[in-house]
Amino acid sequence: MALPQTQTTDELVTTITQMIAAQDLTSLTHVLSPVTPTDLVPVFERLSRKQRAVIYRLLAKDRAADVFELLDPPLQSDLLHGLQDAEVSQLFADLDHDDRLWLLDEVPAALATRLLRGLPEQERVLTSALLGYPQGSAGRRMSLEYVSTRESFTVAETMDRVRTRLDDAETIYTIPVLDDSRHVVGVVSLRGLLGAAGETLISALMSPAHTAAAEDDAELAARRCADLQLLAMPIVDREQRLLGMLTIDDAIRILEHEESEDAARQGGTEPLRRPYLSTPVGSLVRSRVVWLLVLAVGATLTVQVLSVFEATIEQVTVLALFVPLLIGTGGNTGNQAATTVTRALALGDVQSRDFIRVLTRELRTGGMLGLLLGTLGFAIAAIAYTPQIGLVIGLTLLCVCTLAAAVGGCMPLLARAVKVDPAVFSNPFISTFVDASGLIIYFLIARSVLGL
Amino acid sequence: MALPQTQTTDELVTTITQMIAAQDLTSLTHVLSPVTPTDLVPVFERLSRKQRAVIYRLLAKDRAADVFELLDPPLQSDLLHGLQDAEVSQLFADLDHDDRLWLLDEVPAALATRLLRGLPEQERVLTSALLGYPQGSAGRRMSLEYVSTRESFTVAETMDRVRTRLDDAETIYTIPVLDDSRHVVGVVSLRGLLGAAGETLISALMSPAHTAAAEDDAELAARRCADLQLLAMPIVDREQRLLGMLTIDDAIRILEHEESEDAARQGGTEPLRRPYLSTPVGSLVRSRVVWLLVLAVGATLTVQVLSVFEATIEQVTVLALFVPLLIGTGGNTGNQAATTVTRALALGDVQSRDFIRVLTRELRTGGMLGLLLGTLGFAIAAIAYTPQIGLVIGLTLLCVCTLAAAVGGCMPLLARAVKVDPAVFSNPFISTFVDASGLIIYFLIARSVLGL
Repeated sequence: MALPQTQTTDELVTTITQMIAAQDLTSLTHVLSPVTPTDLVPVFERLSRKQRAVIYRLLAKDRAADVFELLDPPLQSDLLHGLQDAEVSQLFADLDHDDRLWLLDEVPAALATRLLRGLPEQERVLTSALLGYPQGSAGRRMSLEYVSTRESFTVAETMDRVRTRLDDAETIYTIPVLDDSRHVVGVVSLRGLLGAAGETLISALMSPAHTAAAEDDAELAARRCADLQLLAMPIVDREQRLLGMLTIDDAIRILEHEESEDAARQGGTEPLRRPYLSTPVGSLVRSRVVWLLVLAVGATLTVQVLSVFEATIEQVTVLALFVPLLIGTGGNTGNQAATTVTRALALGDVQSRDFIRVLTRELRTGGMLGLLLGTLGFAIAAIAYTPQIGLVIGLTLLCVCTLAAAVGGCMPLLARAVKVDPAVFSNPFISTFVDASGLIIYFLIARSVLGL
Repeated sequence: MALPQTQTTDELVTTITQMIAAQDLTSLTHVLSPVTPTDLVPVFERLSRKQRAVIYRLLAKDRAADVFELLDPPLQSDLLHGLQDAEVSQLFADLDHDDRLWLLDEVPAALATRLLRGLPEQERVLTSALLGYPQGSAGRRMSLEYVSTRESFTVAETMDRVRTRLDDAETIYTIPVLDDSRHVVGVVSLRGLLGAAGETLISALMSPAHTAAAEDDAELAARRCADLQLLAMPIVDREQRLLGMLTIDDAIRILEHEESEDAARQGGTEPLRRPYLSTPVGSLVRSRVVWLLVLAVGATLTVQVLSVFEATIEQVTVLALFVPLLIGTGGNTGNQAATTVTRALALGDVQSRDFIRVLTRELRTGGMLGLLLGTLGFAIAAIAYTPQIGLVIGLTLLCVCTLAAAVGGCMPLLARAVKVDPAVFSNPFISTFVDASGLIIYFLIARSVLGL
């Protein structure tokens, strides 16, 4: 632990790659044996699928299982292929319920059913229960292994319950308090229990509970849990009856997952399922090609628009010189607005119903930016070319910036309103839309100003 | 809690806004009184600075303090202005050390010094100790209020220590184990302590500790803590001696902060300090104008490039029609690569030293994408115009995509290598660079193919 992670990881990756290339598996086993499972994870994340399969087989069964538990679900599902059914079922059975759910979301349906069938009866019941909740819901991510208590119980009674569940309960530090019909009426922290006298009644000790509903969006529930700095949050049904607990580590995992998705889509790519270096180039291409094609097809719009104004360009070729600058600036303004609003949506700072407020703010912002850039553009173009050209450029920048900011700010909200990931919709759409409409504005202004 | 947050929040915001407008402070006080501090936070995040100041003054002192503690540092610092010095010092003194540090990073230096001076002696010593660590370091974000134990102690002794620190310790669930010279030799969980017999020696119970150094980057330390699903991680000096604990809730806060920053910069804006709706339009403009100007200035490059080829455009006006499509596609490919690699950097999946691996992967990815789009572009342009034009478009798309992916993938790594935020550097730089170089490639290919 003392020496920096990355160092050791890099060295390991290099050695492993060489030894696998040299097929020197005996020395490879020696190299691997001293490495802790936690330190093996980053190594796995930097190796190719084949390499991962090789070194995984070289690990002792128990260590292999430990590593498996720590890996991301996509890497886990990679490893499952090519393992014996018995081994697979064993690994799957050893996972926590919530980890099983993540993995089930990864593997093909056929394997998923096999995995479920392989589970011991009681485990299967629990896991299937979670599978009942829709993908992306808080219910699907909650833990069923918790300790709960009752208002009418004493601290001593509750502590006894905690002690009996020490080994299997996933969370014991936040304990939901239930009434006789399992409604969540509050929570007590283990800290609070330790500080109180044994005969104290839980009802005297508990604090109000922050909960999320099982059908709530998992991201919102996770964000809530994180914002309120809770170690675990009770997940309830519509009647506030306890269903499970969302633990902070699962909340972080959900948020990280969502943020990777947003980041990717903001950049116009589908999220990678695996760490970058362990993602085959083919998958990189796949993650980008769709959006790239969509955008390219959209961009043909600009070709059409320009060909409409081809005559104008022939008359005043200089107009063509500013096309990249104008649409580029429009696109940037639009993406700025889209990025800001998309992030605000993710953080829960704005909702779709804030449409009007956002629109007016972005119109004002875009207008100010356009006024500034327009003035500059006018001055420069007027000096470099003619005052008329300057006027055309200035006016276009003003209009394009205002339009782009408004469109960029509103698209994410519309996307969310129609239940599409705001990040998907925003940037690609905006660049295309702003490019095309910006060009139209540009040439219309040019024609009227230059009297063509 | 039962009814959806957003609902109540929205209603509150509307009512408050109206009542403040109507200066009806008495009814406003009645409206506020039943609302819990936790529910007031989202309301604060949707009000203007002025409105926030008004309702804050209407809250009873103790509730006001509770709300203050829950607010983001920028909103806290907003409130501090216009409060009595005594009140300010009180609020500041009531914060945890780490919350104080966040706030001190927000307020002007003069106020910061005043705030520190206002602290009780012992508190000031602790806070100043943290201030000793550089901004953005793990040390600056660690908590000094923890419980530690010794290898040689028994479980019972350790539990006694925990009980004495229940009220002030920020974390009691993960307990670092020290040797006689304060080196961290392991950790025990409170869960483990509860499960063990009182006379058990800690050395028999402890597990190896994952630590981070105080001068480590706070983001990396936080990511580590989250990835390892730790509730708290010991922060140590170069000799592995315990300095403090990084708690998971602070880790989440750091990561959220960094992610907002990355998201913003990816979109070419400076991060907002406050929730979107409570950010004045002026600040929105400020957050965007700098990058927009930089990009616009960069874009003038494209004007120069094009003016070099003005003659070519005059000869073959149709070439001008494809300019937006070509540079647009280049920009998209570049941003895709940049976004992917920037995120991989943030997650620690790649480091600067992976430069070559990333470069080769992006060259291959870009090449494949270019081949695909180029073929399509050739076909379409050949049909719509002439085979020569088709060839020009196809070849340009191939070259531009390959170049863009390579540049886009490597820029974030270079940025990180020179200690600049990868997100800052990537997209703005890429769009400009790719636009300009793309145009050069385009017209050079055009000239040679069309023999101009």
